[in-house]
Amino acid sequence: MEYRKIKDEDNDGGGSSSGDLESLRGKPMNWPTGSAIVTLALTVLTSSQAILIVWSKRAGKYEYSVTTANFLVETLKCALSLAALARIWNHEGVTDDNRLSTTLDEVIVYPIPAVLYLVKNLLQYYIFAYVDAPGYQILKNLNIISTGVLYRIILKKKLSEIQWAAFILLCCGCTTAQLNSNSDRVLQTPLQGWIMAIVMALLSGFAGVYTEAIMKKRPSRNINVQNFWLYVFGMAFNAVAIVIQDFDAVMNKGFFHGYSFITVLMILNHALSGIAVSMVMKYADNIVKVYSTSVAMLLTAVVSVFLFGFHLSLAFFLGSIVVSVSVYLHSAGKLQR
Amino acid sequence: MEYRKIKDEDNDGGGSSSGDLESLRGKPMNWPTGSAIVTLALTVLTSSQAILIVWSKRAGKYEYSVTTANFLVETLKCALSLAALARIWNHEGVTDDNRLSTTLDEVIVYPIPAVLYLVKNLLQYYIFAYVDAPGYQILKNLNIISTGVLYRIILKKKLSEIQWAAFILLCCGCTTAQLNSNSDRVLQTPLQGWIMAIVMALLSGFAGVYTEAIMKKRPSRNINVQNFWLYVFGMAFNAVAIVIQDFDAVMNKGFFHGYSFITVLMILNHALSGIAVSMVMKYADNIVKVYSTSVAMLLTAVVSVFLFGFHLSLAFFLGSIVVSVSVYLHSAGKLQR
Repeated sequence: MEYRKIKDEDNDGGGSSSGDLESLRGKPMNWPTGSAIVTLALTVLTSSQAILIVWSKRAGKYEYSVTTANFLVETLKCALSLAALARIWNHEGVTDDNRLSTTLDEVIVYPIPAVLYLVKNLLQYYIFAYVDAPGYQILKNLNIISTGVLYRIILKKKLSEIQWAAFILLCCGCTTAQLNSNSDRVLQTPLQGWIMAIVMALLSGFAGVYTEAIMKKRPSRNINVQNFWLYVFGMAFNAVAIVIQDFDAVMNKGFFHGYSFITVLMILNHALSGIAVSMVMKYADNIVKVYSTSVAMLLTAVVSVFLFGFHLSLAFFLGSIVVSVSVYLHSAGKLQR
Repeated sequence: MEYRKIKDEDNDGGGSSSGDLESLRGKPMNWPTGSAIVTLALTVLTSSQAILIVWSKRAGKYEYSVTTANFLVETLKCALSLAALARIWNHEGVTDDNRLSTTLDEVIVYPIPAVLYLVKNLLQYYIFAYVDAPGYQILKNLNIISTGVLYRIILKKKLSEIQWAAFILLCCGCTTAQLNSNSDRVLQTPLQGWIMAIVMALLSGFAGVYTEAIMKKRPSRNINVQNFWLYVFGMAFNAVAIVIQDFDAVMNKGFFHGYSFITVLMILNHALSGIAVSMVMKYADNIVKVYSTSVAMLLTAVVSVFLFGFHLSLAFFLGSIVVSVSVYLHSAGKLQR
């Protein structure tokens, strides 16, 4: 559960600061090469996230408080945004596109993704009254569909029919790859559980699409400025979460109680993933992000076979093939513009 | 097993005679409407086949000998071909395209599909040393891929890249829909088992593609003449099978021992399915046949929910969605000619 929380917040979540050399110079990256690099980075970072989790589980239970780790992730991303901005100001001077101060009108939208995730994470505690944890993992694949639908409706971007078919396949393929002997229980989910799962998928999809809208609203705006605002609010919300959930633990045992080398690696990884998500949102889109994290899920399983001796199921192979075909169809089905 | 044998021979198998009104008149059918009707008929007949099997199992064990039933299926199809031809000769007189007698050159190819099935059915007894029956059902989905590959190589017909993707999805979707908690055992299949499964898939695919080649070699040739020759050899091979496998039983208990109303329905159904397969081969192709029987597999499961209170698994739903998307992609991906 701890993992899910930290993972949800970062990966489904808002953008982040960037230490990337190209964007440090404040120029739009050279796409599609840059897009491919960032997408690859996101995929690798997301897979290694899950692998770090398994590793840390092997090493023992989580002893640190997850809220403090989340707060540090946001802080690290904020710091990286500022560092990148400082470099840009040095090289290019302060311009309209890279100045930190901005109008209330522009800033007011930045806390919205964070609020959406807060609501979603609150709902998460209630959905377990209706679904067990593996069932919830299965239902989370609804995010794929909700992201696609909201991407179409809110951002008004078109996917070709082949690409829609590919998106449905991506959802089916990911779910198939996660099937195990208990998965059928999810079919017994009561109506309330389904409704909550759908609402959560919509919240998550909406947060992603909204972040993309923020990042792209002013394309010339330096990504580090956008990230700074996004993550200042992320820090604020996580500070509130520490006070509500872990105030006593932090007061009695200290902020860094239970931190280990793996914890530090995980925080670093989450911060870098956040950066990658943010860049994908600005220079690519939510669809690319969904594909990237789905492929990462499969990569994680394959790497786990070698690292931890996991066994792959037939369902995993079938799901992986369906996901691979989906990736192919997404690119083959590109609309001619 | 009995069911599989009778099913394999008919449905994967050669064409058959036709009582269809259009083809009775010896004219090529009015495609694509006719193609759609025949494809629909094949789908419905194939699903009801499986449902008849479940029904007959509920009613008790098979007591009749399967070889005699297979022989009667071939005989019935032969009889229908002759009846159709008689009508055509009456209406239109004997022409080059509807005369029964033909050259040795033309006839010599007709027993080949039957021989291929014979070899495949023999192999079937040996593969069970390596795979259990549910595992074999899973491996049989390799037929889909082998049919596609041989269709491309032997008939030299092109599928678009999207259609190839759709074909891979069809195979994955059908397999996913059949997954159950024991399916993973198929991954432990030893190399010999895999080789035999692949050889059997190739034999089955080759028989299908070869039948299509025979049916289309002379498009003007009346389908009933082609069916007559195909099924005369079917009768001959099944007569040999009776002698080898069930000679004592037939001699002691009689040819029709254990026949019931359901047995008669099944024979009728198999004969009609054979007719539909034959028409699909002549007027459509192996690809259409594979889609048709795959969709029939799903239909059977859905109908069984209502008829027999079967439960559908999550894997079934996912597989069905993948198959549906595959059907869509096959049609959306048609090559522009």
